[in-house]
Amino acid sequence: MKLIDGRETSKVIRREIADEVKKLLAEGGKRPHLAAVLVGHDGGSESYVKGKMRACEEVGFKSSLIRYEDDVTEEELLDKVRELNADPDIDGFIVQLPLPKHISEDKVIETIDPRKDVDGFHPQNVGRMTIGLPAFVSATPQGIMELLKRYEIETEGKHCVVVGRSNIVGRPMSILMSQKGYPGNATVTVCHSRTPNIKEICLQADILIAAIGSPEFIKQDMVKDGAVVLDVGTTRVKSDKTKSGWKLKGDVDFDNVSPHCSYISPVPGGVGPMTITSLLINTLKAAKKEIYQ
Amino acid sequence: MKLIDGRETSKVIRREIADEVKKLLAEGGKRPHLAAVLVGHDGGSESYVKGKMRACEEVGFKSSLIRYEDDVTEEELLDKVRELNADPDIDGFIVQLPLPKHISEDKVIETIDPRKDVDGFHPQNVGRMTIGLPAFVSATPQGIMELLKRYEIETEGKHCVVVGRSNIVGRPMSILMSQKGYPGNATVTVCHSRTPNIKEICLQADILIAAIGSPEFIKQDMVKDGAVVLDVGTTRVKSDKTKSGWKLKGDVDFDNVSPHCSYISPVPGGVGPMTITSLLINTLKAAKKEIYQ
Repeated sequence: MKLIDGRETSKVIRREIADEVKKLLAEGGKRPHLAAVLVGHDGGSESYVKGKMRACEEVGFKSSLIRYEDDVTEEELLDKVRELNADPDIDGFIVQLPLPKHISEDKVIETIDPRKDVDGFHPQNVGRMTIGLPAFVSATPQGIMELLKRYEIETEGKHCVVVGRSNIVGRPMSILMSQKGYPGNATVTVCHSRTPNIKEICLQADILIAAIGSPEFIKQDMVKDGAVVLDVGTTRVKSDKTKSGWKLKGDVDFDNVSPHCSYISPVPGGVGPMTITSLLINTLKAAKKEIYQ
Repeated sequence: MKLIDGRETSKVIRREIADEVKKLLAEGGKRPHLAAVLVGHDGGSESYVKGKMRACEEVGFKSSLIRYEDDVTEEELLDKVRELNADPDIDGFIVQLPLPKHISEDKVIETIDPRKDVDGFHPQNVGRMTIGLPAFVSATPQGIMELLKRYEIETEGKHCVVVGRSNIVGRPMSILMSQKGYPGNATVTVCHSRTPNIKEICLQADILIAAIGSPEFIKQDMVKDGAVVLDVGTTRVKSDKTKSGWKLKGDVDFDNVSPHCSYISPVPGGVGPMTITSLLINTLKAAKKEIYQ
């Protein structure tokens, strides 16, 4: 069994990005610039955005944080989005979700210029990904694709089972894995809460992607010997073994499943550390106008 | 075995649309208006566009045909698209594909206002469909969804196998069938040219959607007893039994497969007749602003 180490892969990629930034600047180019809009003071969002800003610094990007209180109006927020769309110094920006209930997330996302939508949430980017055109792909799916590539995991003709059909993980993964090219060209099955025979389906998987958000849902008897397992779950559960009083659990019963896998990504330290790095990849692509001219 | 009769279903839907147009007009509303742009004189495109214009007349829509010779420039065509985008009398329009090689189909499609994109080819509509937002869905997938509904075929928890991953049929069908709601909530497997064990996969299907464009590819020993089979194939093959010298063949070996099915759509007369009707459905939705406000 080989461990898919997202922390290590992430470090390697960030070094590559940092090198590329140096090269860009040496050639007289502009420093890539990511902006983040944060509404309110949700603890999770705060620390996530902080992590993104820190990552920018690490690779040599410029970053800007724009903060609003919880009572910002939808129109104020949309005006800021339009301003960032028009600002030539900003290569890409994100609006950290979730937003307060009085603001339509769909409307905010659809107002972002797809060319600056480095989160890959705009329907135009989702649609382009779906039909196989160049697109900003959202962080988690892109991180998984990157891990498959870096670990040179064969995907063509393999049966990939995706458990979960969320818009941010399951759905895009199922599309990307069945797309032409590498990683891709897999036979892909999507199963979800309405699938009655989920165990039987999972047992067919050469590559199993678990993205349901149900801790240790995938048991040993659901995984074929030699399968590649990617665990996207990150549920906080109480623990008396950690200082904080909780720990992160994946969707896979790692202790019992891992001995039978060819590759498995752990939680934490697998897919998770790749997400912010994916955002950096997208921001670099935006700065270099690789997706849209 | 029950036959899924696309001709009959199509007639029923067109009568419903015609009734709705009368109601709209009686309430002082505007007559729905579809425009079609046709470049060149390809026989297939000519007759297909003619069929669309005739269908508009049948249900009481206004229709306009805009013709260009093969040597129209991309810029001229894009200007026309922009003009149609801005014309308040046009509810929806299509640019008949394929276009001559010197014109980028992607660019033309992306220039169409998504709110008037009744073909459902714009990435914004594809993306909205992918993430489960209201969207114009392209003709064939929408026709199949309509047939499933009208024949009250159960889909929840069923295993749906889609053979083919094209942007106009296989891909959207696989997304729609695994989406929440009805028809949907199915476990969905997409297989394609790179799937080594296609027979084994097809045998799992409660609902089999064949969209590969390979005549009679699906044989009896690939279909489970009692399966629902939807045949999207339409390949012209030579025939000495027809006046024209050719006939239309589906992707399914109908004679041998059909006795074992619970439902099957024939070729011709199954999915095919639904496509133009789907365009009418979309045009009505555009006129009533049901997708975008």
